Amino acid sequence: MPSSKPLDVVGIGNALVDVITTQVDSFLEECSLTKGAMMLIDTERAVSLYAAMGPGVEMSGGSAANTMCGVASFGGRCAYIGKVSNDQLGEVFAHDLRATGVQFSGPSPATDIPTGRCLIVVTPDAQRTMSTYLGVSELLGPDDVDEAVVASAQVLYMEGYLWDRPEAMAAYRKAAAVAHRAGGLVSLSLSDSFCVDRHRDAFLDLVATEVDVLFANEAEVCALYGTEKVSEAYSKVAEHCDLAAITLGSKGSVVVERSGDVHEVVADPVPEVVDTTGAGDLYASGFLYGLTRGLPPAECGRLGSVAAAEVISHVGARPSANLARLAGLD
Amino acid sequence: MPSSKPLDVVGIGNALVDVITTQVDSFLEECSLTKGAMMLIDTERAVSLYAAMGPGVEMSGGSAANTMCGVASFGGRCAYIGKVSNDQLGEVFAHDLRATGVQFSGPSPATDIPTGRCLIVVTPDAQRTMSTYLGVSELLGPDDVDEAVVASAQVLYMEGYLWDRPEAMAAYRKAAAVAHRAGGLVSLSLSDSFCVDRHRDAFLDLVATEVDVLFANEAEVCALYGTEKVSEAYSKVAEHCDLAAITLGSKGSVVVERSGDVHEVVADPVPEVVDTTGAGDLYASGFLYGLTRGLPPAECGRLGSVAAAEVISHVGARPSANLARLAGLD
Repeated sequence: MPSSKPLDVVGIGNALVDVITTQVDSFLEECSLTKGAMMLIDTERAVSLYAAMGPGVEMSGGSAANTMCGVASFGGRCAYIGKVSNDQLGEVFAHDLRATGVQFSGPSPATDIPTGRCLIVVTPDAQRTMSTYLGVSELLGPDDVDEAVVASAQVLYMEGYLWDRPEAMAAYRKAAAVAHRAGGLVSLSLSDSFCVDRHRDAFLDLVATEVDVLFANEAEVCALYGTEKVSEAYSKVAEHCDLAAITLGSKGSVVVERSGDVHEVVADPVPEVVDTTGAGDLYASGFLYGLTRGLPPAECGRLGSVAAAEVISHVGARPSANLARLAGLD
Repeated sequence: MPSSKPLDVVGIGNALVDVITTQVDSFLEECSLTKGAMMLIDTERAVSLYAAMGPGVEMSGGSAANTMCGVASFGGRCAYIGKVSNDQLGEVFAHDLRATGVQFSGPSPATDIPTGRCLIVVTPDAQRTMSTYLGVSELLGPDDVDEAVVASAQVLYMEGYLWDRPEAMAAYRKAAAVAHRAGGLVSLSLSDSFCVDRHRDAFLDLVATEVDVLFANEAEVCALYGTEKVSEAYSKVAEHCDLAAITLGSKGSVVVERSGDVHEVVADPVPEVVDTTGAGDLYASGFLYGLTRGLPPAECGRLGSVAAAEVISHVGARPSANLARLAGLD
């Protein structure tokens, strides 16, 4: 990797503040929620679901923003591109990124549309079910991609959730072109198998043409290639990407190289899994940090395991401990 | 206690959203903060302190509001009086109270003054240091006291923090008169020994004339009576109040009756003390719940111990488990 660039990773995503509540499983059914999935909701639904929810805790979130915080916790230099409003939750979102050491250009010019929220229901099995009201993050488009920032990073990272909106997809296409032109790598997380189902063709085209490093879980990579056979998905993804990191939950992860080599990575032990929110986001942070330090694929995966284990051991989707120290890097 | 009243407890206090961050001890010195104390701050200081703080978690707080949530978690019927703005944090505050089952009349009419915030720094010893930007909660005055609500409760409860503002003091004087006229009890928490120091005469006058049940820790009750001898403070408080519940941290609490009888109450064991924010608030909730159920003083103290132990075992000042169940009451 070129190390002369001032930034290690730049992330693009939906900027959201998480509102986290704990509920029993029957709550999901009462509110017509699909366990483990992310669903986009409109204002009306956001109001009614919030009213039905128990007391909450608010924490800055957003998939790619969580990943950037993880990279920063490892000691990486990051920036984030996403839209918040000039309101209290936007202020909180910007504060938390900057306090973590992630560059962020801050609230968009004044608008009546509020900062987006992700209503997260954590069930007793530690699974999270997410309902996202995008708010102003929905306005992210190509004009919001700061070309200088993207060109200055070794790796561009994007969350698949952006694929739900054509303008965001255009923003990512633009960012990917800028990154490649500047000699950087382009990485993508598939985010959610339902999201892949909704936009399979667009994802497939992007992965085949622009993605160097892909993050996914088994369900997502199988959904992408329309197969139920994991081995088939692995061989297809090896044709498209330099590296694919496939997470397997408690079974760890595998890293597939373009050469076809497959590295198995064990999961880090966790005394008690409290909240799986952010597991994939933080796995990606460790992997990306390792990548920018020129570490071999299996070691990148190990750093991913360390970060994922930390974030699922407490409520919330961002690390609450120093990941460099946890990984024995400091 | 008369049980025909529709409400058990009504609380009055500064309505605040807590912003909680973890920092090492040196941060307190760098920011000129006094460990364990609550300091009122203006807008400018709130902005600079927030900028210096690490990433935060936002949770509804406010001392008396925390206590009402605790009473509700035991199964009590409560209402809360305090002022929030018609903004995002005000919405969060109102949601969390109602979702807990506490009656709350909701945001005040539109104003430019934002909802108040309490910036809480938790150090590795689990101590919390609080800097409060009152925001719109500062506007609480006698007109905000809904006489019908106060008269409908068995017990009125107020936090001592209100004593920093004359209008709030007037509001509490009015509420106390309404409560007594309706045959209810009046209770007060001294909140903070620095707060008692600032307003000793006003506190003494109120305790002597209006307070039936007093909550304090040893430092606060000694500050109130200007003595360093705990035994002297106990005998003085017995002259003023029907009951005084004095918390002693890890050593539990003592309940002093007007008769002079003193009941020692042990603390509930806690595997790990994580964050002491809300310990006094939640002790009061258990005690008040027991009081409204006609339980003897030592049993009221035991319920206080159960609630305090729960809240110091996790981050945040409101219970995250059902207190009735923890106390073996359901």
